[in-house]
Amino acid sequence: MAAVVGRLTGRPGVCIATSGPGASNLTTGLATATTEGDPVLAIVGIVPRAQSHRHTHQSLSIPNLLSSVCKSVLNVDVEDQVSEIVLRSIRTASQFPQGATCFAIPMDVAQSTTKVPAFDTKAFSAPKYGIAPASSLEAANKLVKEAKFPVLFLGMRAGSPEVVRSVRGFLKRCPLPVVETFQAAGAISKDLVHLFAGRVGLFRNQPGDKLLATADVIVCVGFDAYEYDANVWNSNSSDATLIHIDYHEADYGVHYSPEVELLGSIESNLDLLSPSDKIYSRPEVTAVCLALREELSAWKATAKSQSQPGGLVHPLHFIALLQESLSEDTLVTVDIGTVYIWMMRFFYAYQPRRLLSSNGQQTLGVGLPWAIGASLIQDPPCSQKVVSLSGDGGFMFSSQELSTAVLQKCNITHFIWNDGHYNMVEFQEVMKYGRSSGIALGGVDFAKFAEAFGAKGFRVEKAEELEEVMAEALAYNGVSIVDIKIDYSHNLELAQDIIPEDYR
Amino acid sequence: MAAVVGRLTGRPGVCIATSGPGASNLTTGLATATTEGDPVLAIVGIVPRAQSHRHTHQSLSIPNLLSSVCKSVLNVDVEDQVSEIVLRSIRTASQFPQGATCFAIPMDVAQSTTKVPAFDTKAFSAPKYGIAPASSLEAANKLVKEAKFPVLFLGMRAGSPEVVRSVRGFLKRCPLPVVETFQAAGAISKDLVHLFAGRVGLFRNQPGDKLLATADVIVCVGFDAYEYDANVWNSNSSDATLIHIDYHEADYGVHYSPEVELLGSIESNLDLLSPSDKIYSRPEVTAVCLALREELSAWKATAKSQSQPGGLVHPLHFIALLQESLSEDTLVTVDIGTVYIWMMRFFYAYQPRRLLSSNGQQTLGVGLPWAIGASLIQDPPCSQKVVSLSGDGGFMFSSQELSTAVLQKCNITHFIWNDGHYNMVEFQEVMKYGRSSGIALGGVDFAKFAEAFGAKGFRVEKAEELEEVMAEALAYNGVSIVDIKIDYSHNLELAQDIIPEDYR
Amino acid sequence: MAAVVGRLTGRPGVCIATSGPGASNLTTGLATATTEGDPVLAIVGIVPRAQSHRHTHQSLSIPNLLSSVCKSVLNVDVEDQVSEIVLRSIRTASQFPQGATCFAIPMDVAQSTTKVPAFDTKAFSAPKYGIAPASSLEAANKLVKEAKFPVLFLGMRAGSPEVVRSVRGFLKRCPLPVVETFQAAGAISKDLVHLFAGRVGLFRNQPGDKLLATADVIVCVGFDAYEYDANVWNSNSSDATLIHIDYHEADYGVHYSPEVELLGSIESNLDLLSPSDKIYSRPEVTAVCLALREELSAWKATAKSQSQPGGLVHPLHFIALLQESLSEDTLVTVDIGTVYIWMMRFFYAYQPRRLLSSNGQQTLGVGLPWAIGASLIQDPPCSQKVVSLSGDGGFMFSSQELSTAVLQKCNITHFIWNDGHYNMVEFQEVMKYGRSSGIALGGVDFAKFAEAFGAKGFRVEKAEELEEVMAEALAYNGVSIVDIKIDYSHNLELAQDIIPEDYR
Amino acid sequence: MAAVVGRLTGRPGVCIATSGPGASNLTTGLATATTEGDPVLAIVGIVPRAQSHRHTHQSLSIPNLLSSVCKSVLNVDVEDQVSEIVLRSIRTASQFPQGATCFAIPMDVAQSTTKVPAFDTKAFSAPKYGIAPASSLEAANKLVKEAKFPVLFLGMRAGSPEVVRSVRGFLKRCPLPVVETFQAAGAISKDLVHLFAGRVGLFRNQPGDKLLATADVIVCVGFDAYEYDANVWNSNSSDATLIHIDYHEADYGVHYSPEVELLGSIESNLDLLSPSDKIYSRPEVTAVCLALREELSAWKATAKSQSQPGGLVHPLHFIALLQESLSEDTLVTVDIGTVYIWMMRFFYAYQPRRLLSSNGQQTLGVGLPWAIGASLIQDPPCSQKVVSLSGDGGFMFSSQELSTAVLQKCNITHFIWNDGHYNMVEFQEVMKYGRSSGIALGGVDFAKFAEAFGAKGFRVEKAEELEEVMAEALAYNGVSIVDIKIDYSHNLELAQDIIPEDYR
Repeated sequence: MAAVVGRLTGRPGVCIATSGPGASNLTTGLATATTEGDPVLAIVGIVPRAQSHRHTHQSLSIPNLLSSVCKSVLNVDVEDQVSEIVLRSIRTASQFPQGATCFAIPMDVAQSTTKVPAFDTKAFSAPKYGIAPASSLEAANKLVKEAKFPVLFLGMRAGSPEVVRSVRGFLKRCPLPVVETFQAAGAISKDLVHLFAGRVGLFRNQPGDKLLATADVIVCVGFDAYEYDANVWNSNSSDATLIHIDYHEADYGVHYSPEVELLGSIESNLDLLSPSDKIYSRPEVTAVCLALREELSAWKATAKSQSQPGGLVHPLHFIALLQESLSEDTLVTVDIGTVYIWMMRFFYAYQPRRLLSSNGQQTLGVGLPWAIGASLIQDPPCSQKVVSLSGDGGFMFSSQELSTAVLQKCNITHFIWNDGHYNMVEFQEVMKYGRSSGIALGGVDFAKFAEAFGAKGFRVEKAEELEEVMAEALAYNGVSIVDIKIDYSHNLELAQDIIPEDYR
Repeated sequence: MAAVVGRLTGRPGVCIATSGPGASNLTTGLATATTEGDPVLAIVGIVPRAQSHRHTHQSLSIPNLLSSVCKSVLNVDVEDQVSEIVLRSIRTASQFPQGATCFAIPMDVAQSTTKVPAFDTKAFSAPKYGIAPASSLEAANKLVKEAKFPVLFLGMRAGSPEVVRSVRGFLKRCPLPVVETFQAAGAISKDLVHLFAGRVGLFRNQPGDKLLATADVIVCVGFDAYEYDANVWNSNSSDATLIHIDYHEADYGVHYSPEVELLGSIESNLDLLSPSDKIYSRPEVTAVCLALREELSAWKATAKSQSQPGGLVHPLHFIALLQESLSEDTLVTVDIGTVYIWMMRFFYAYQPRRLLSSNGQQTLGVGLPWAIGASLIQDPPCSQKVVSLSGDGGFMFSSQELSTAVLQKCNITHFIWNDGHYNMVEFQEVMKYGRSSGIALGGVDFAKFAEAFGAKGFRVEKAEELEEVMAEALAYNGVSIVDIKIDYSHNLELAQDIIPEDYR
Repeated sequence: MAAVVGRLTGRPGVCIATSGPGASNLTTGLATATTEGDPVLAIVGIVPRAQSHRHTHQSLSIPNLLSSVCKSVLNVDVEDQVSEIVLRSIRTASQFPQGATCFAIPMDVAQSTTKVPAFDTKAFSAPKYGIAPASSLEAANKLVKEAKFPVLFLGMRAGSPEVVRSVRGFLKRCPLPVVETFQAAGAISKDLVHLFAGRVGLFRNQPGDKLLATADVIVCVGFDAYEYDANVWNSNSSDATLIHIDYHEADYGVHYSPEVELLGSIESNLDLLSPSDKIYSRPEVTAVCLALREELSAWKATAKSQSQPGGLVHPLHFIALLQESLSEDTLVTVDIGTVYIWMMRFFYAYQPRRLLSSNGQQTLGVGLPWAIGASLIQDPPCSQKVVSLSGDGGFMFSSQELSTAVLQKCNITHFIWNDGHYNMVEFQEVMKYGRSSGIALGGVDFAKFAEAFGAKGFRVEKAEELEEVMAEALAYNGVSIVDIKIDYSHNLELAQDIIPEDYR
Repeated sequence: MAAVVGRLTGRPGVCIATSGPGASNLTTGLATATTEGDPVLAIVGIVPRAQSHRHTHQSLSIPNLLSSVCKSVLNVDVEDQVSEIVLRSIRTASQFPQGATCFAIPMDVAQSTTKVPAFDTKAFSAPKYGIAPASSLEAANKLVKEAKFPVLFLGMRAGSPEVVRSVRGFLKRCPLPVVETFQAAGAISKDLVHLFAGRVGLFRNQPGDKLLATADVIVCVGFDAYEYDANVWNSNSSDATLIHIDYHEADYGVHYSPEVELLGSIESNLDLLSPSDKIYSRPEVTAVCLALREELSAWKATAKSQSQPGGLVHPLHFIALLQESLSEDTLVTVDIGTVYIWMMRFFYAYQPRRLLSSNGQQTLGVGLPWAIGASLIQDPPCSQKVVSLSGDGGFMFSSQELSTAVLQKCNITHFIWNDGHYNMVEFQEVMKYGRSSGIALGGVDFAKFAEAFGAKGFRVEKAEELEEVMAEALAYNGVSIVDIKIDYSHNLELAQDIIPEDYR
């Protein structure tokens, strides 16, 4: 929840926990925030300093433990440090690459007082970076201008409203074909969608992958390989020249060795980039874009008929209906699992940070808590509908938070794509080993589950029920769970037709 | 689950997880196992070695992360190490102090093969330690013999069947007053119960605490301060002489500085200890024991009448009924929360490892998973009733495991003491600050919750319903949840009458 | 030696060591480089991967050990990483704040081959940062313009030739009073010296300290508190407004909380700063500068007469003579000890990186090795005189490197200020405790020592011998040691007249 | 120096250092002590707690740094811990496997006072372990009794006087052929020497290696693979059954998987071992022993004639003369380098801890400092001659300590085998690559060097001078250095005739 607050506001979401398991239970959440660039501040307790080297209840070296998953973990060694440590922790979390920080207060320090006052509010703002050297900007402009087929590739740090504004401005000045990672979802507005070849990520078989494989120059904006390994999307790395635009230097490697780095404010550097206005109008570029756009939209025509009457709901059927049912500005959070592959490929988003997924650690269970966190920072809190989705396996990782959602009076509709299995593991096991193992779940009635928590439960067992139930659930003002029996018989297709290394 | 397998069998329970959040989700479980002395082996995946320093999906430094909560974390650096690493990990977990170990397999190593065969089964047994030097044994015998009021204090490593056998033998040879920590529950058999002054732990106000404060020599057997700080139970440390009997050296400190250490096999050293057979027959010792026994049993007379007709169930009412309903050899697991203070003080156990609690990390949520783990190692699996208890808050920490219990066809009755709050935090907040904060829960119907999972749900809303519902639930062959509205109005009493430092 | 190569060239000096003590012997050198901002790459061996978890000759966890003293330590886990790891290590060392990086090669990996080629030379350049946001630049200009008494404060990252060029340009556009830390020595050219209030560092009693205490706005350029704690020079921190100009964000604290940060290229940001050309001409500013200049130069008049005929050499006598004897572009390295306080306060330098000291870790023994390293990168190698100084205690920390100096045919004159004690520890012990302890050395004849190594030995026992011996030693083409009996009877004065907190 | 105090007394040698480089300079020494089993306590300073997270002079995370080379590093977090931390650090260092511990005192804590008094002296003794289980002792006796060719193998923890006493007692009860590692030198007394097949270590080509390869049961006493990899001496590991006798469990591996472990007090377990008194009298055993004894002693006949008149001193010539010149109880320390291979193979020792080498980390430079440390703990200090040896390269690693030796008035004769090269690296480079690189030294006159320090210098340039100079140097009461031009033309022979894997 703290992570989604950070992702949506750009400022650290704060969480607090007691010593021992209180602190260690934060591990996965903090790891996810740090990997995926969400500013978070965790405040945890530890045993009194006099006990620091002895066995005692809940003794655990929190700084050692959490420093593997945080940008910094500071122990308050004496009370007069606390003001400085709060400031540093917030600044560090806020600075790009944003992530989690933590400070730990020994019980005896917590009971003492400090004579050092808190810092002024303005000290808490993140350090501000400016623009790249003129020579680098020039070099980047020149590379794009002279390219035959330059492409814009938007990554996780291109998904913030600030950067999206500059991305759109750039594309208006210089229309380039564009592709995005899952966490950049929403960067391309409707009026620019003719340039857009879709999202890329798990399995290199998407239209966007073909676009990248076609490019001779790729302008990477806020890209982080946590989302998508460069040795996958750029396997034939000698072919394309990369330009790296980010708050900080590239994670340089064999398949990601940019020719030019534009470091500093992504927005400011993008605003200064203006290589040419003619690229999209080149016939060969237009042709590729049109073909990819067609490939991208083709599924919609038959989406609803993928489900058979009396049969289970096909994922594309669901997605087409959901897309029609929601306004552009409804926030949708998607948990990990097969549901995330379908949704992040096919669900459209035209506004920044309206379609969220965990694409670095791929952490199961984020769907519902993120929907709660997003509800709580609405103004007024919980005033608008938030939609979340998960598989049945992923839902169980944090299902008890339904209690929080109800207690906080959220307005959330959570859809469960229920196949009674850990399907994303299952189909990859089948792909690798020809059989699956250890993936059976099932037997849980999620509609009844919802009611046990005082939420509203819905159930879709046949495809033809979907439209009406979805409408009813979305209209319900409060917390509701929709348990949908999903048709996962086509999932192996998600990993088919991997693009060969020598594509271009 | 793996930890309870370790605790019950003395051999490592094994768990396995994928990379990233798969591994990090093990953190709290492994920390609990290591602190509380349960042998566990965790096997986790990590990214391919070629990606080890790059950003990639689910990259996380597992060895750095988990080494804070494990006895050892070994990375398989090359395939030919794997046989050795499996052996070392199991030996290290098995060796006292037992705890969790882990090894991590990079994805590319997992796909290769090794020419080094697995070790023989017998190599996997833990190193065997023998007896202390004769001079130390003599010194210990002399100290006890010459003591005016020697007391036996049993800690977590005195709770295994092997040590319990020797403890009982020793007490038959040399009847001493005896006290135990929560994890030593069950060490004293019915025929020795006249020597027994009960359990000590959270809050120094128990009969057993008075016994320790009276003693001039305390024989500490398998004691670990993770359970109970020596600066609490031995605050006036200059008064008592300590003898430390354990597999390994004392965690020496200001309040725990034993005069003699008997290191090696606890069982063997205890078997060689025989200071005198007269101690309990000293009138001043007998008198104290009788008085403490009386204090210990007094509650039973009025237990059932603590609940008012039409009112909520009083904890002592529940405990008295549960005690009558179960045979001595039924395993009972108790989750953390106020329920654990009541149960670990008042529920009797006469066999080793039949009453289990988490008394080192005090980890919420262990109740149900431990009941499942214990069921799975029954012979045949899930053949006998296991009882688990938790508060409503603690239950939610692992409530989704109900699905596992049902899928595995366990025979578990789980009682929830439901007050709609994190009560153990609440009453301590009130004690410290005069008010509580952030502890409200509630609104969950656990009987309906059970049914959502295909388990049987029961509900006790008035005290007079308890007896019948408890009987029905225990008779139910399968998984059942009993949601009991509990009367927590007396909980501040649990922390009253703390023994003053100058007690003796 | 590698560190001074890094400090002088701005590119990583490289050192290599075998496993075990080979690697661990690098610890202090790498710590010094990382703290003091010198780019260094260390390449070390470790045991074969198959032995990584076993006891074996020279097993030592190098990554764990050296990661405390390096910016990064990468283990080559598989051979195909090596090209990437070399690149990353060099880029990381080169990036500001520059420092040491390390990679470790297991013996079996060292014996294998990789199919991944080395990166292009151009990939090895450090990431390039540009200028701060316009709003920050404006704010900085405004603060200085509106200040009553703004001061420029140059720190360790203001000592490179690139930054010095911009500092001088700035001072010509906008003459401000200026002060520098020890590692910024040489930033102020002769034509700007009227603005210069000298260096500050150990003991807050210098003219420069008075200047800082007088300022209402302090422009900190490349300042790092490793050199001089802000809670010392800015103890009354509410009085002055700070502007932070550096490659990266401030190490924010109670006494160092800048109002504005200008991040990115120090040089580019300085080039854009142009608040006013009138500051120095304000009468109150001029008056202070003149007074401080006078205070700074006063010692010279009597320097040579500080030594008594027949007596020992007084430090100021030595410094005055040395200054006269050397051209502006002779490199002088100064080891830690009392000699460093005297030299860094009184020895003038007008070119960047011509007067070097270790002012972060204050590492004893750097004098001679730095002189060797500096000689080796001359073109042609060892073609020009390098001068180094140390105390007798500090000299002994690395005295064996004299062999290297001779074998490499360096042209070095090394002066030893010999008082037979660890004097810098001694006089501070006297200040704190009224007596000294454990500081006696002595009995070494350093002229004979030099000859044992095939170097030339000189000896100065009386003040009147100094001039001639110094001339002879500096004229000697090769390696020479000058053993000077120094007069340390006045050293307590170095710590006198500490500026009070409420100075302004 | 602290390490040799630990090695000789069995109790921690203590060293102390200031913050920053003071502490980091201890790294190699502590690593060596921990690896080689020498108890040491290091006390170091760190920056004040309020500065712990800021940049400041000499800030360095000492606990992180030194924990890689120490058994424990404890930070004094509050003043009242200091008594406990001193106790724990000494107990931990003293406990087997002995090694280095450290505690760090922040400057502000050092200036405060504690109300917790120091512990009683007796608390500081190491935990005492007793004997193995009877069943293990029986199993061990049975294995040896039934063996055809059992062998006793003494490792580093069999070199203490306590264990040596038991080893000799055992061999008298049960005469077995015996072999030792370098650090066990001196375990076998003259009256047992007929059982002794010499030392094994670097290069598997020694008589002792043949003995091990012949054995069907090997009784390993205090063996640690830090000295000699089991995959070298036991490469054909399926052939021999191992018995492990040590204070603690085996470092189990593919080539070291003992059938029986006898854990606890090595001495006590050895005292209880008595399998048979007939083993050595078996003809096949006697025959092998006699042959190996002959092989071992053969060199002596021609040792002195290995040097040619007018030529350099041959190592065996030197060793034969030195052996004749010293009494059995003179302490000899041997630095690392080729000198260590020659000495540890050929120099006899009949008393425990009289011939010392660094055989775990193989740390260059230990020779002279160990001789100083050993001198200082003599009673009275520096009252007896100590002999140390090194190569010219190794000597330079700590040559400045000559000043300490002189100041402390030691009585040390230090022999330098001078060939002007890092010969041990050189000849192994030639063996591996056919050429050498980076190993040239030379040009230092060590006799003159000695005199620069006020020590006595000697020089041997021709073989025929050796006898007289050695006598004179050993007779000199004070510190002397003997610079010997050594004949290293035969060193490749040291690595010849490696025993094949299928030897038996």
